[in-house]
Amino acid sequence: MKASQFLISTLKEAPADAEVVSHQLMTRAGMVKKLGAGIYTYMPMGLRVIRKVEAIVREEMNRAGAIEMTMPVVQPAELWQETGRFDKMGPELLRIKDRHERDYVVQPTSEEVVTDIARQELRSYKQLPKNFYQIQTKFRDERRPRFGLMRGREFIMKDAYSFDRDQASAKASYQVMAQAYRRIFDRFGLRYRAVAADSGAIGGDLSEEFQVIAATGEDAIVYCPDSEYAANMEKAEALAPTQARAAATQAMAKTPTPGKATCADVAQLLGVPLSTTVKSLVLATDVQDANGASTARIWLLLLRGDHDMNEVKVGKLAGMEQGFRFATLAEIDAHFGCQPGYLGPVGLRQPVTVVADREVAVMHDWICGANAPDFHMTGVNWGRDLPEPDLVADLRNVVAGDPSPDGKGMLAIERGIEVGHVFYLGTKYSRAMNASFLAEDGKPQLLEMGCYGIGITRLPAAAIEQNHDARGIIWPDAIAPFTVVVCPIGPDRSPAVKEAADALYQELLAAGVDVILDDRGERPGAMFADWELIGVPHRVTIGDKALKEGQVEYQHRRDAAATRVATAEIGTFVKSRLSSATA
Amino acid sequence: MKASQFLISTLKEAPADAEVVSHQLMTRAGMVKKLGAGIYTYMPMGLRVIRKVEAIVREEMNRAGAIEMTMPVVQPAELWQETGRFDKMGPELLRIKDRHERDYVVQPTSEEVVTDIARQELRSYKQLPKNFYQIQTKFRDERRPRFGLMRGREFIMKDAYSFDRDQASAKASYQVMAQAYRRIFDRFGLRYRAVAADSGAIGGDLSEEFQVIAATGEDAIVYCPDSEYAANMEKAEALAPTQARAAATQAMAKTPTPGKATCADVAQLLGVPLSTTVKSLVLATDVQDANGASTARIWLLLLRGDHDMNEVKVGKLAGMEQGFRFATLAEIDAHFGCQPGYLGPVGLRQPVTVVADREVAVMHDWICGANAPDFHMTGVNWGRDLPEPDLVADLRNVVAGDPSPDGKGMLAIERGIEVGHVFYLGTKYSRAMNASFLAEDGKPQLLEMGCYGIGITRLPAAAIEQNHDARGIIWPDAIAPFTVVVCPIGPDRSPAVKEAADALYQELLAAGVDVILDDRGERPGAMFADWELIGVPHRVTIGDKALKEGQVEYQHRRDAAATRVATAEIGTFVKSRLSSATA
Repeated sequence: MKASQFLISTLKEAPADAEVVSHQLMTRAGMVKKLGAGIYTYMPMGLRVIRKVEAIVREEMNRAGAIEMTMPVVQPAELWQETGRFDKMGPELLRIKDRHERDYVVQPTSEEVVTDIARQELRSYKQLPKNFYQIQTKFRDERRPRFGLMRGREFIMKDAYSFDRDQASAKASYQVMAQAYRRIFDRFGLRYRAVAADSGAIGGDLSEEFQVIAATGEDAIVYCPDSEYAANMEKAEALAPTQARAAATQAMAKTPTPGKATCADVAQLLGVPLSTTVKSLVLATDVQDANGASTARIWLLLLRGDHDMNEVKVGKLAGMEQGFRFATLAEIDAHFGCQPGYLGPVGLRQPVTVVADREVAVMHDWICGANAPDFHMTGVNWGRDLPEPDLVADLRNVVAGDPSPDGKGMLAIERGIEVGHVFYLGTKYSRAMNASFLAEDGKPQLLEMGCYGIGITRLPAAAIEQNHDARGIIWPDAIAPFTVVVCPIGPDRSPAVKEAADALYQELLAAGVDVILDDRGERPGAMFADWELIGVPHRVTIGDKALKEGQVEYQHRRDAAATRVATAEIGTFVKSRLSSATA
Repeated sequence: MKASQFLISTLKEAPADAEVVSHQLMTRAGMVKKLGAGIYTYMPMGLRVIRKVEAIVREEMNRAGAIEMTMPVVQPAELWQETGRFDKMGPELLRIKDRHERDYVVQPTSEEVVTDIARQELRSYKQLPKNFYQIQTKFRDERRPRFGLMRGREFIMKDAYSFDRDQASAKASYQVMAQAYRRIFDRFGLRYRAVAADSGAIGGDLSEEFQVIAATGEDAIVYCPDSEYAANMEKAEALAPTQARAAATQAMAKTPTPGKATCADVAQLLGVPLSTTVKSLVLATDVQDANGASTARIWLLLLRGDHDMNEVKVGKLAGMEQGFRFATLAEIDAHFGCQPGYLGPVGLRQPVTVVADREVAVMHDWICGANAPDFHMTGVNWGRDLPEPDLVADLRNVVAGDPSPDGKGMLAIERGIEVGHVFYLGTKYSRAMNASFLAEDGKPQLLEMGCYGIGITRLPAAAIEQNHDARGIIWPDAIAPFTVVVCPIGPDRSPAVKEAADALYQELLAAGVDVILDDRGERPGAMFADWELIGVPHRVTIGDKALKEGQVEYQHRRDAAATRVATAEIGTFVKSRLSSATA
């Protein structure tokens, strides 16, 4: 490609609404252009990146035996009503009406449509397993779209769906996808982690997120530097402490803590570590009796003052599976005789279910609210001052330094951006839509499903969050809009420069390298600034002075300075620098 | 690809709503699956065809210097309000609202968005010309979607838009596209015609349709077998007759024609050729005076009884440009004193504008309605029986045998399916959206535009309408889902058959041929029926008996019988049969 025949449109300033660096840089580099809230045109420079991402994903999906199809963007509501999602999903599901006032949705994913296809097409166990995928435009009507392509409304997603005859086969299909995803993310040339994720009600370990590591990531990911263990924060287990509970050394005392309604304030007032305090969280679940009347069950969750509650873990407690809410002030008053800030498990007015985090269960001489305004209890001890908890469970987010659940070291935490997810679905959709096949015994049986997504347009944004500097983007070779840029300096003044640049361009083109020749005639400063902003990884600069000495300059986007290379060898030199994924 | 790892899903019966052969065959061959009215999933077999169409289009668009981008499917209404199309377009424009009740459209095309991009990006004449294109999902909410992919609601279109500094340059850009389209359609391997189309108010010859020839086509296309002339029916000019008007030989007579309200009936009753009759069409235009009051102007159009009115030509008459309508019965009665069926230009009650078709203007001794029920006038002659017409014009559709407008022979007519259109837009959109650039003289000037579409998902349907037989589809090599199918007979029973099939499959794969090996173990009859229905152009059958004689069978989908080829030579033989576009 010659730059004069392409659209290169860089900006000095990022738009005011660009909060994150990838949005700023993609806009400044002319890769995307905002059309409306969360809706972007993929400009020529950006589309080249997206196409490379698509090509890698497509190649590896095909290699893994998945079969491509394309499902409609506009989908009739009927199928969505069959699974109940038409009503259950929030306004992020864009519901529309056609000219005849019939209901449709703009697809956010395609579980319903693909399950409808499967129940028509996959009639016998002999046709299984099958995996269908598409790379297609999706729409989620986010309440607050932001961060450019990171959280847009219209986006491109690769979504795959596997269909199997039984759980064992479904798990094998899942593993095939999980492996394909590792190959895909390896090829992108990004630092990433595949982390175990919560698989909801289905259980088991068949849910993994693929997280691109970036300090600006929205997600906390947990890993063990000494082992393969990695999970997202929702999933990562905080093991039970190995030490036993120590004996009480203090008497329980009602201690004045005026105006100190948080554990941190209390610890500071009393001059003790935060880890000796216990926080009280009051939740409620609503239980329907046989007549349909609803009564609330009140739960008291106890966590160490320096720990945070993990909602996913709490949601898995027996009795919580149907959902929970925070208790109302009236409910709290009825059970504790006190308002939040000074609550605790000692001396309750009405019975509540007390659940202690594993760490809290082994504490001694601890501090908690006294159920009296401006007072805390100190020196509290299980058994002596209050009954043992009704339940001991893992209720908290892990913290750095916690032991790894695989027993192989300590956990560390870093930030990531989720760009892929593999998930075992079981029969959730096939049951709702009665998608069955004839098994070997001649009886109908529900299809076992899995679903597998990659955010095609989110990936470039995540790549930039991970790979940029003050001057702009630094693309990995595999997904760069161009792999190499050839920059002649003053080709109008020097026929030799022009000729050398053209020759190198032609040589690299002939070798199948994705090269762009900057023939725009820009001055060096503006030209270099453009390419550093756009982030093309390899640059060759051809200037009159060096050329007379038989040399040109090579510089990788990460190099601090250029390297002189003999003109005759530059083609070979550049090719040797390209990552094998591109060559 | 091995068939066992793909989805092959053929049907014996076409769905009841499949009215045309392409819809029937695409459904039966498992290429598309209907999800809703005019909304189809592109199934794996069909998507392969679509991807090949896309790839050819993309390659030739890039070769012609067009630059790919992708504009959003969901577009804010504001831009569409700028050009007025949000209000002017009918319900085929799918208007939707997001969660905040803001107006959006699902794109039917992207003139507004691309013009918005151009007015931001193309600021100087130095950046021109530019041509931007996308291959993207579109939606038109057809009142009555039908014919499968031929007239769907959701479809894929390639739309390109050129931007130029002046008309001369815009016309050059138009010609570049027109040439690229010829290359594209040549590569598809279809019989097609590029026909001149009406360019609306802009004038000139800068509008061409690309029509795939098919007996079932919706459009009549006009061409000259002896020259390059080709036009669609709207555009094709009926030349003025070269012979002068002959002198009157009959006296005008009011002749009873009871119950004969059509020219055909009158001609039959009177035993004269239909071409001696003249039909009267009464139109009206509404003229606003300075006070905004509307008065109707009544027009009488006279065409030969055997000719059809051409609405586009009529719409170009001076005074008709703002649109016309058929006159009401009241208006007809007021001017003719008679109801339709017996109208004519002789003896009008009120003045009307009489427009004679060129053919009618040279007639003598003709027959028309007498403006009296159940009576016609015979022996009518211009000048003697009524004044010369106010206007003589080309009002009619051409018919086969008419002289070609280029003077090189006679016109013929065939049917076609429009799959592409190139169109010079001028400043229609740039004016509405104030899309200007700085010209060489430093002054802002409106961008000159052209637009260029190809119906990516319509093309396969058109290809099938042109290329099929009783057994199924016959794909041209370039867009076949697979180019070659290898069919082993009883590979389970004969290791030699299996081995020979595998070896040929591997040889063709290695040569880059898009080959599928049918390893499903189907019986020969079912297997051949599947591939003939699907329409793979080249088939190699490997059976035990021939193999023992050192031979296998090759059959092109159009061949009546198979050809025996030596096993050792079959790879080379097949490759030699592939069209160069594919190899």
